[in-house]
Amino acid sequence: MKEQEEAERRFMLRAAELAAYAVDHGLGGPFRAVVVKDGVIVGEGYNQVTSANDPTAHAEVMAIRNACQQLESFQLTGCEIYSSCEPCPMCLGAIYWARPEKLIYGSTRFDAANAGFDDAFIYHELALPENQRNLRISFQPHQKAVEVFRHWKDRENKTTY
Amino acid sequence: MKEQEEAERRFMLRAAELAAYAVDHGLGGPFRAVVVKDGVIVGEGYNQVTSANDPTAHAEVMAIRNACQQLESFQLTGCEIYSSCEPCPMCLGAIYWARPEKLIYGSTRFDAANAGFDDAFIYHELALPENQRNLRISFQPHQKAVEVFRHWKDRENKTTY
Repeated sequence: MKEQEEAERRFMLRAAELAAYAVDHGLGGPFRAVVVKDGVIVGEGYNQVTSANDPTAHAEVMAIRNACQQLESFQLTGCEIYSSCEPCPMCLGAIYWARPEKLIYGSTRFDAANAGFDDAFIYHELALPENQRNLRISFQPHQKAVEVFRHWKDRENKTTY
Repeated sequence: MKEQEEAERRFMLRAAELAAYAVDHGLGGPFRAVVVKDGVIVGEGYNQVTSANDPTAHAEVMAIRNACQQLESFQLTGCEIYSSCEPCPMCLGAIYWARPEKLIYGSTRFDAANAGFDDAFIYHELALPENQRNLRISFQPHQKAVEVFRHWKDRENKTTY
């Protein structure tokens, strides 16, 4: 137990200490994430939104993608994800899809909001009914968009996720 | 107005009709997204989770990344995103960060859930208090993880997003 706690502190220290890297190198925002499996780092990521022209290039998303390439898997089974900050809804969603064992974070969405980041705003938006959100959203039901799920269910030898 | 409606139907038809592409080619799930600016397609994406070993490679994320590369911008200002299905929380979060004008979708999270996808489950999880979620989550406050935000605020000539 003590060993596990020490390991958690060590990996969190790494994520937190290196969160300044993307800022100092003009790559993106002050965030870093580390993916660990069996006590070994298998993936890392830092924010690259503005330098890579990619609004999805958050630390956690980059760390997940990096770890999945290393592990040659689309799942992070048995892994822990350390993030310098509480993940935004996009990153938390990504974490759910990656299905790691555990998430550990070192600062909150409110710390991020104080520095001008939209994390808390987006959490608030997602909790609202669609027609009360800031983003204009239109549901335009389309038969083919539903039928394609039947097509998927009927298909044999597919890889589910 | 009528012209706008016709355009919306046309782009939704494209997203819906081609949603089977990833399934038929063994690339991933039955989803497709199209990004449009001023009536022209500037980005497209389909699900590549299982073939690319990337749990974040959903149709909307791929379409946003593709459009941002085309437009050489980390923002989709003035764009519309058409998705064959209601975006999952990860993709909806990505859409908020990309800041398009509008989102249009053609089937729902419940259609996706019926076909075995976790979209509705993840929406449900995100609405729960952290300690009631299925995912193990631990907040391990770290001074450096908070201080890095001050570092960011103090930095001049940075690109905000």
